[in-house]
Amino acid sequence: MERVPILKIGDILLVSIQIDMSDQTAVTLQEDLAERIVATGCHGVIIDITALDIVDSFVGRMLSTIASISKVLDAETVVVGMRPAVAITLVELGLSLNGIRTALNVERGMELIAATRDDDPGYDDDPEGVESGTAATSP
Amino acid sequence: MERVPILKIGDILLVSIQIDMSDQTAVTLQEDLAERIVATGCHGVIIDITALDIVDSFVGRMLSTIASISKVLDAETVVVGMRPAVAITLVELGLSLNGIRTALNVERGMELIAATRDDDPGYDDDPEGVESGTAATSP
Repeated sequence: MERVPILKIGDILLVSIQIDMSDQTAVTLQEDLAERIVATGCHGVIIDITALDIVDSFVGRMLSTIASISKVLDAETVVVGMRPAVAITLVELGLSLNGIRTALNVERGMELIAATRDDDPGYDDDPEGVESGTAATSP
Repeated sequence: MERVPILKIGDILLVSIQIDMSDQTAVTLQEDLAERIVATGCHGVIIDITALDIVDSFVGRMLSTIASISKVLDAETVVVGMRPAVAITLVELGLSLNGIRTALNVERGMELIAATRDDDPGYDDDPEGVESGTAATSP
């Protein structure tokens, strides 16, 4: 079975979707991505869809699910590289890509994620903060 | 025809190869990459082959050609994400990937390119330098 590679760049996980997604590939990608977010502690996921000619309801739902899973794991998701024709088709089909943020390209996606993290008052730059807080009470 | 997307991240062009490369796809990728190097002035190309189960002589030659083209255009090429099994097969097949530098993952590839540029005494950080040098002699 084909697997979509997940590339770690700094605090960001980058996924470039180039193959036709089947049910199984989509589920595997969601699982792989969730595991990598937990393993790396990354706070951002960028999904590049430059290679996709069509974003149908299946792919749209997959993107929404990934964004929701990432959100629960404290990571922002940004979809980048959408072609103009894809955007037009999405609107014509009535698909709104709920909960998905978009940016023109990878660099703007990274800026968007960085800006979001900076704006969030609850964001603690030290990932060990919570753990050390609970562990420090041992006598 | 399928096209391999080229993502710009800072001073680096990132290519993640996930599809089976045909003659035409390979030629298109080489042309696209050369154009993007010239258009963006990027000094590094990272080719991710995490998704490839097999690197045969065709893919090996394509990687070498890309590295040579990039070199002429003043960009370093690093191949990242090679699987252990692929490395073993490459050696068993007697393919040496001439002129290709490798790194374990994208981040290390970026470090390698940055280190190479820093070490190069002929490297001028100002891409306009050569042009302004020739244009300055007009009376």
